[in-house]
Amino acid sequence: MSEQTTPANTASNAGSNATGNAASNVPSDKNHLILTGDRPTGPLHLGHFVGSLRNRVKYQSQYKQFIMLADAQALTDNMDDPAKVHNNVLEVALDYLAVGIDPAQSTIFIQSQIPELTELTFYYLNLVTVARLERNPTIKQEILLRNFERDIPAGFLTYPVSQAADITAFKASLVPVGEDQIPMIEQTNEIVRRFNRLAKRDILVEAQALVPEIGRLPGIDGKAKMSKSLGNTINLGATSAEIKAAVKMVYTDPLHLRVEDPGHLEGNVAFIYLDAFDTDKEGLQAMKEHYVRGGLGDGMVKKRLEGILQDMLAPIRERRQEYEKDRGQVLQMLKQGTERAREIAARTTDEVKAAIGLKHF
Amino acid sequence: MSEQTTPANTASNAGSNATGNAASNVPSDKNHLILTGDRPTGPLHLGHFVGSLRNRVKYQSQYKQFIMLADAQALTDNMDDPAKVHNNVLEVALDYLAVGIDPAQSTIFIQSQIPELTELTFYYLNLVTVARLERNPTIKQEILLRNFERDIPAGFLTYPVSQAADITAFKASLVPVGEDQIPMIEQTNEIVRRFNRLAKRDILVEAQALVPEIGRLPGIDGKAKMSKSLGNTINLGATSAEIKAAVKMVYTDPLHLRVEDPGHLEGNVAFIYLDAFDTDKEGLQAMKEHYVRGGLGDGMVKKRLEGILQDMLAPIRERRQEYEKDRGQVLQMLKQGTERAREIAARTTDEVKAAIGLKHF
Repeated sequence: MSEQTTPANTASNAGSNATGNAASNVPSDKNHLILTGDRPTGPLHLGHFVGSLRNRVKYQSQYKQFIMLADAQALTDNMDDPAKVHNNVLEVALDYLAVGIDPAQSTIFIQSQIPELTELTFYYLNLVTVARLERNPTIKQEILLRNFERDIPAGFLTYPVSQAADITAFKASLVPVGEDQIPMIEQTNEIVRRFNRLAKRDILVEAQALVPEIGRLPGIDGKAKMSKSLGNTINLGATSAEIKAAVKMVYTDPLHLRVEDPGHLEGNVAFIYLDAFDTDKEGLQAMKEHYVRGGLGDGMVKKRLEGILQDMLAPIRERRQEYEKDRGQVLQMLKQGTERAREIAARTTDEVKAAIGLKHF
Repeated sequence: MSEQTTPANTASNAGSNATGNAASNVPSDKNHLILTGDRPTGPLHLGHFVGSLRNRVKYQSQYKQFIMLADAQALTDNMDDPAKVHNNVLEVALDYLAVGIDPAQSTIFIQSQIPELTELTFYYLNLVTVARLERNPTIKQEILLRNFERDIPAGFLTYPVSQAADITAFKASLVPVGEDQIPMIEQTNEIVRRFNRLAKRDILVEAQALVPEIGRLPGIDGKAKMSKSLGNTINLGATSAEIKAAVKMVYTDPLHLRVEDPGHLEGNVAFIYLDAFDTDKEGLQAMKEHYVRGGLGDGMVKKRLEGILQDMLAPIRERRQEYEKDRGQVLQMLKQGTERAREIAARTTDEVKAAIGLKHF
């Protein structure tokens, strides 16, 4: 999967309005543990920011939040380029810190450094049939997307089981996912129920999908999805010049040829981004009306957008640069987070193994 | 799989002559590491003794021998009865000690207590396609055998990958298997080659199948296979009375109705067992000739067989009873073996993870 298809960061690509809020009908207290994360395969971008990073900054004071750098999962379709995955672990961690995720409030950890997650995966594989995995709509979709056909790596077919291991290891009750990833949570809960039945007590906890109310943030080219592989992103670490250049390329209304023509808002990426980031809703509303009426050029719209993005991304970029100066310290933070996370995962794994007769000493 | 279908104990059911020797064209020195073992799903029996246990007693002075109690693998088709698997771990260990496997020479360990084996399995799953697993002739056969059809547990389909993890974790160069299990070794070596290519150096070691020259030991009922599930075994811990009763039921020549009739040796389990266990080859030859000629009753043949089995099994049973008195000590031995084994598996896993970018701290 690309970094867009994990539960966590599918959510991270969602969002086309300014709220950036997740569903409001979810409980909000520290008894709830959120598991979220990203496959470290490239720099995070505005799509991630709108759909998930922003939410995480909010969630960290409301819930116990665990954020996983899913390097092991990233290998399920990046086994040919493990160095890319390795290097992006720290890069994505830098993005986290830059947007304001606070390691004192959120536990950030590296998936591959918690062997217990592979143990749980291993045993859960006995609780799921091959046919059930093949029926998973998300997996079906992704197999098509990747032209895998019969050459699906076994690790790819079974990655929903690995996700179930991640979620249950922390007894997460809330998992932010995009609409299209809900089947993954259902698969997890099937495993939870089957295991608890087997264990004759409720060791594992069912998870609830935390689906954001907002859709995806489109790419600057107007394609539905902002994605590194499509080359239509604005990265969180983008320089001022890169932001300027990207905004210039932002897709607007192809029928809006002359300033005096009436413009259209539908599919107009400049306005979709303004909806997502402009906090002056009244000013924005006035601009929209002017644009639709005719007499407002794309240049003016883009100027407003660029100003907002520059203002928003400058402090993120600066904080990122600060953190970049001491990568050793960031790694130290990841080590501590991983140790904290591992303790919990180990406790669950211990319970799971004891329940299926795998405790001897 | 039943306990007959792991590489180790397929071999363990082989054997219809007295030699009990494995293929003679294999190297014999302490640089070679043998990985063998059993799924702990029930007591070991004469079939295991002829085909594998006897060999292990010999191998332990020739090779570095690691013997795995494959409880994790046993769960791939015993998830509905984990207690059975749990309890048989110690029972099978007792059988090992009873036949003369020496923990000072052989490292006996419990699979599930080495989490690194699940880590390797997890990453190797990315190196094998689903189609390749489905083509595995051994798996195909076993799926048929179990009437799994589309309801194959994912852990069952992927267990050859788990076997590859076991074998490579110890860099085993020799793996005793039955003829029908050779595809499993081929699967392992495919993973080894793919991984080493990816790592750009030879981290993993290819394994060689150690196929015994002898076939299976049939059940007392004449069925091709001695198997707990068929109820046609003589267990290593059988009492004197149980041995007597079993020998009485041993299948001979159904056409040999009267003592004076000529008897047949083909398919005659009494003589197959004598071939396997009688060390007086001349005496046995004479008895065979008499039987074929006519004038020798089945009772005489069975009397000879019973005497031999009673003599052979009595000391095994007595040693077993001795060890049974201190199960705590046996568990301690397993603990030490597991620690020794884990050290090696952890070292390999470390190398594997480093090669695919999964080392951060």
